[in-house]
Amino acid sequence: MKFEAIAVENIPLIKKGDDIAQIICERSDILDDDIIVIASTIVGKAEGMTFTLEGIVPSAKAIEISKNSKFSPNFIQAVLDRSNDCLISSPILLVEMKNGHTCINAGIDESNVEGAVFLELPEDPDMSAESIGKKIEIATGMRISVIITDTNGRAFKIGQTGVAVGVYRLHPLKDWRGQKDLFGKELKITEESVADEIAGAANLLMGEGNGGYPIVIVRGLKLRSDDDTSVKEMYRSDREDLIKKSLKYLRDKA
Amino acid sequence: MKFEAIAVENIPLIKKGDDIAQIICERSDILDDDIIVIASTIVGKAEGMTFTLEGIVPSAKAIEISKNSKFSPNFIQAVLDRSNDCLISSPILLVEMKNGHTCINAGIDESNVEGAVFLELPEDPDMSAESIGKKIEIATGMRISVIITDTNGRAFKIGQTGVAVGVYRLHPLKDWRGQKDLFGKELKITEESVADEIAGAANLLMGEGNGGYPIVIVRGLKLRSDDDTSVKEMYRSDREDLIKKSLKYLRDKA
Repeated sequence: MKFEAIAVENIPLIKKGDDIAQIICERSDILDDDIIVIASTIVGKAEGMTFTLEGIVPSAKAIEISKNSKFSPNFIQAVLDRSNDCLISSPILLVEMKNGHTCINAGIDESNVEGAVFLELPEDPDMSAESIGKKIEIATGMRISVIITDTNGRAFKIGQTGVAVGVYRLHPLKDWRGQKDLFGKELKITEESVADEIAGAANLLMGEGNGGYPIVIVRGLKLRSDDDTSVKEMYRSDREDLIKKSLKYLRDKA
Repeated sequence: MKFEAIAVENIPLIKKGDDIAQIICERSDILDDDIIVIASTIVGKAEGMTFTLEGIVPSAKAIEISKNSKFSPNFIQAVLDRSNDCLISSPILLVEMKNGHTCINAGIDESNVEGAVFLELPEDPDMSAESIGKKIEIATGMRISVIITDTNGRAFKIGQTGVAVGVYRLHPLKDWRGQKDLFGKELKITEESVADEIAGAANLLMGEGNGGYPIVIVRGLKLRSDDDTSVKEMYRSDREDLIKKSLKYLRDKA
């Protein structure tokens, strides 16, 4: 049993309006069950998800947060505009985004973007994954999956890893419930976050700096599903998330 | 650019005293820069890290925690014995282990172990990785790395992923600091947790149930270091970890 992760070579600098599906098809031979892993940065650029801080009117809340923050009120407002809730406001800005994804700065990114322009995540990364995935399937006749990735930090440990922020034809969680271990006992570990594991694997090739590889094909895993799938399948509700509950409790008491 | 992840086939059921390095060398052709990823379960079994709850004398703290827990006082005591600190005691038992690793139940596992016997992590997973790695290097003449893995949950999202709990000749974090992006700006993302990304990649092949593959070779990444490396390089100090700080604050106020 094995799988391969293959970086797609010679991806041009992506700009607004570029057809990422076509760019992939021209540079790779896609096979059935391939998982096409795409950095959200290039999807955001193709979708024109760049903006500047000019013209943003910060709310009282953004101005208040900025007093204990390294960020400007306008930047903070841009983050709040994309969030349901702000869990930590200083020294970092940890928010739950509108689709349920919890991350720093609502995924707004300053690197790899020209000038004083900010790049945000695709508006609906599941839909972006579906759009790219369907085009690739039509062009190639193959049945594939797509994962759109970002890099996120995590609790308790230093460092970022690649994570899935949008999926097409791949359930982010693999359900082991009811399966037995080698000795016939029910398994304790029940749901494996395969989408995040694949995103992390691809990130090992993507790199962050000059000459990054924003598209990686993961080949050899049989994870494609005919279902409509969504990254939201792995987001916990507040009620179920002890750490989120704790952070909110602390914030509201302060 | 590409890498492969290859499950080693025909690994026997591991028992106390088994020589994992020899078992690997007999079943695979190791190359320079291979990263040998090994599930902590088989390392723990080979090292005889099994125990029963009989004879454990629960402390007052363990008895107190058990009142709001599905776990027995003896099991809770076994977890506390292996921990510096208990961050959440109910409904889950989230602890910081003696070596700084934060996880549920101090990594004590009931699945894949015969009878009412529990399996814990290797006593010093870095040292286990080094011991196995050095034997493989001597037997094969190749320069390799080793990662010992467990599966952990995470904040904000459902599901577990493979994570590194011990390393040999591989820095768990890849430092991108000072590097420039495509437009010459300093990168915002600074440290990539390559050890956890590789552990997650390997976990895609390991499986959890019947016929698992506890050993995976990751080939094609150039991450080996001649340094003495430790998984502790990626553990945050309490002072730096906002979420840990919040959980402790809440616990101590309660």
